[in-house]
Amino acid sequence: MALTVLSQSAVQPSSARSGRLLAKALPFDTIRENVVLLSRDCLALRPGRLLGLRRVEVRGAGKCLLASPMICDDPAVVGPDEIGLPQPLFHRLGVRTGDPVEILPARPPRSLDSVRAKIGGATLSQSDYDEIARDLAAHRWSDMEVAAFLIACASLMTPEETLALTRAMVSAGGRLIWDYPLVVDKHCIGGIPGNRSSLIVTPIVAAHGLKMPKTSSRAITSPAGTADTMEVLARVDLDETAMRRVVETCGACVIWGGRVNLSPADDVLISVERPLSVDTPEQMVASILSKKIAAGSNHLVLDVPIGPTAKVRDAGAVLSLRKLFTFVARRTGLSLEVLVTDGSQPIGRGIGPVLEARDVMSVLERRAEAPVDLRDKAIRLAGRLIEADPEVGLGEGEARALALLNDGSALRKMQAMIEAQGASPVDGRPGSLTHEVVATRSGRVAAIDCLRIAGVARLAGAPDDPGAGLDMMFRAGDPVRAGETLYRIHGSEPADFRFAVDAAGEDCGVRVEA
Amino acid sequence: MALTVLSQSAVQPSSARSGRLLAKALPFDTIRENVVLLSRDCLALRPGRLLGLRRVEVRGAGKCLLASPMICDDPAVVGPDEIGLPQPLFHRLGVRTGDPVEILPARPPRSLDSVRAKIGGATLSQSDYDEIARDLAAHRWSDMEVAAFLIACASLMTPEETLALTRAMVSAGGRLIWDYPLVVDKHCIGGIPGNRSSLIVTPIVAAHGLKMPKTSSRAITSPAGTADTMEVLARVDLDETAMRRVVETCGACVIWGGRVNLSPADDVLISVERPLSVDTPEQMVASILSKKIAAGSNHLVLDVPIGPTAKVRDAGAVLSLRKLFTFVARRTGLSLEVLVTDGSQPIGRGIGPVLEARDVMSVLERRAEAPVDLRDKAIRLAGRLIEADPEVGLGEGEARALALLNDGSALRKMQAMIEAQGASPVDGRPGSLTHEVVATRSGRVAAIDCLRIAGVARLAGAPDDPGAGLDMMFRAGDPVRAGETLYRIHGSEPADFRFAVDAAGEDCGVRVEA
Repeated sequence: MALTVLSQSAVQPSSARSGRLLAKALPFDTIRENVVLLSRDCLALRPGRLLGLRRVEVRGAGKCLLASPMICDDPAVVGPDEIGLPQPLFHRLGVRTGDPVEILPARPPRSLDSVRAKIGGATLSQSDYDEIARDLAAHRWSDMEVAAFLIACASLMTPEETLALTRAMVSAGGRLIWDYPLVVDKHCIGGIPGNRSSLIVTPIVAAHGLKMPKTSSRAITSPAGTADTMEVLARVDLDETAMRRVVETCGACVIWGGRVNLSPADDVLISVERPLSVDTPEQMVASILSKKIAAGSNHLVLDVPIGPTAKVRDAGAVLSLRKLFTFVARRTGLSLEVLVTDGSQPIGRGIGPVLEARDVMSVLERRAEAPVDLRDKAIRLAGRLIEADPEVGLGEGEARALALLNDGSALRKMQAMIEAQGASPVDGRPGSLTHEVVATRSGRVAAIDCLRIAGVARLAGAPDDPGAGLDMMFRAGDPVRAGETLYRIHGSEPADFRFAVDAAGEDCGVRVEA
Repeated sequence: MALTVLSQSAVQPSSARSGRLLAKALPFDTIRENVVLLSRDCLALRPGRLLGLRRVEVRGAGKCLLASPMICDDPAVVGPDEIGLPQPLFHRLGVRTGDPVEILPARPPRSLDSVRAKIGGATLSQSDYDEIARDLAAHRWSDMEVAAFLIACASLMTPEETLALTRAMVSAGGRLIWDYPLVVDKHCIGGIPGNRSSLIVTPIVAAHGLKMPKTSSRAITSPAGTADTMEVLARVDLDETAMRRVVETCGACVIWGGRVNLSPADDVLISVERPLSVDTPEQMVASILSKKIAAGSNHLVLDVPIGPTAKVRDAGAVLSLRKLFTFVARRTGLSLEVLVTDGSQPIGRGIGPVLEARDVMSVLERRAEAPVDLRDKAIRLAGRLIEADPEVGLGEGEARALALLNDGSALRKMQAMIEAQGASPVDGRPGSLTHEVVATRSGRVAAIDCLRIAGVARLAGAPDDPGAGLDMMFRAGDPVRAGETLYRIHGSEPADFRFAVDAAGEDCGVRVEA
């Protein structure tokens, strides 16, 4: 039957007479969403009367934010003339305790009309997406509104809409402009634990002479993001000025993107996508490309691992994903290569920031114990990037990459980057609590479940505890004897550690077959 | 392109070694969602490490609930060995301060796999919907998960799925069984302020001798629900035993459904639908029919107002809605009649619990000032219900209804119901703060905007403040002179009142044309 979606325009008082309260910082952190605490007897606005629409507009220090109210029944915490401001709202609003804050029932942002239109099957325009991205970046939507948008888009989004969303997300944040004709980057769509090839590819490519100013993310649901692992080796929380200084000196950097504010709307979408475990091709394309375009890249190699427990599970999915990536990249002036790689099992041995950083350095230092799979993958990716150099012929990139690794150039470049970025604030030792997960039978490793392995590493404390994680002793296909250690769990907090040990006891994620 | 939706199975420790904390009631109310406050240094589980999946499982007093964590940085509020429990979680869990509570990272409920399947376009089965309704009723989903489900269903739901969801929602709550062969009810799909015909229809129909045990809802986004208005006249928070006593005595009741726990999953869906302002035919059918079936009705008259600012705006929408209602009603053994009514403007004069109750009583008491539109509509609806009586011929119902109103039987029945339900806990006077909204030009009332009028009444404080609301002096088509009062705003809290006055000043919702 036809779908009827009904919109309800809210009625809002004029700005002139909103209620005035005194700001009070609260020692709470609501993690992402804007929340205010109001006394049940609040003098400006009775929170009990907002039950239906449940949003208030908060004005202070020249800013105007939307928030979800909670009710406080203790005047010692929040009095009737006060407004309790937990983090992150307190920080976002930028007021001090005691400052005047105005509050009024919120009119839903106009961008939500577009969400309702999308639910009803409409195709949205560039200006609709511009408004959506601006409101997302300004944290004007509640989590449930973000979820509604994501799912409405999951059902139907044209390639032109994906392009429009990508462009809107770029415009809603900062943008880095570089004076170099060629700015390269690589990105992996994720889902493979231990896959830290970026930290090897970047110094190789920079040693060749290409510019690779890499901004990366911290982990959201994985045991380590590129930024988390780099932080074991160097400072990563650089602002734009500090980042530019590193790139001028070294030709490359690997920093956390949080302080340069690239595609902030993407951060909001991801923070809801991940707990919902929903990841559509359209969101993936808009998310990745908006970040890369905002970072000023013009040549991108995209690593798409395929495997039974990876994000992309078959060749058909790769084909449609590649088409969409190519469409949006071409229209935004980004040169893009998609590289399909093996996503059947973790890459390298370590999983978790410290253990992954150890693997990265062992490859760069050409140690005997360096994981071959990590090295080979990095060489392959670096080779493709190097071929973007007009001076390098097709098919010559890998040999050049290998030469730069083997003659120590890549290691020296990495050391220069580390020095330029500054000393790591992180204790680089693996967690001192350990537990060996052993094979209960002899045979051959038949399969390693990426999701399960990542889950155990998360429970052990990674990436929040950088030394937590797993050290894998086997790869798929390897022979194994009963009693041998399949992997070692590292951690440092007994509370977290035992969650990981218990989870591995139920299902360790490594299947051994006779 | 093909849609790829990827599921991520979470890893969970075994139950044997979850972390133990001491319960601490907090004087906060998170309104609906389950929230816990954990110290950043919590001994059982570091909340900072949950950022990705953001859900914890809380076990205490034999119950096991899921909740979203917030972080507390003040050990005086929540210490490392404590778990802070705001309302409603504290109440739902049923522990006392100091009781042991176990906590562990939550495995997403299995029912969320169905949501992801639905997002991917799957048709779900009866057992999928059974699991979904059970988890909704047990508050196991976060708001963003509920939103994802609603929007995924908005895109595509077969009639069989709507039937399955309806049945699942009935099964997930309590169910009233009556010994009467015919149990009638009426329901309005809503959106028209002042439309309190149920309070007139019920005593008329009961005076005729039919059984009409009515459970109704409180307002969520409207200025008054049937339960809110009835509460001005009598107690409505009756449990099942008290309700049965009233029905045995009077043949009817009008109570709030909250204590008899009918279709609790519906309450959860509605609490997210409303702030999102999304209302699909499928959800409307499942919501209304699950409540009526659970309440034990077998004959329902459904009032569907059509109008430019009503929920249903044209005859095409009514047709598809009627088909879906009829399909699900027939398969669940419910006899259903759909009555299309005028939804172009508010019904009656009062808007808000006290003012609406005044209108209802003036109709039952046959006063000269009784609103004719409200009386006529109630007679029409009551007539159709009375015709469900095998003794009454088609076309005879309305005359019978009018006779029962005119001879005072309906009023006496209402008085008996009020006495049986118990004295109202509510101050029945209109709010003492008043403001007259006057016509700025002479002419004719061209249109009254139901949404705007409802919004102004909500801002004035209705229904939380029962005396707040509007008293309408004109109907569409009436002649009006500049300076005449279009409506009077009532309120009792200065803070709320001025929001309403300001909103009416911007756009009063009554359009006067020359």
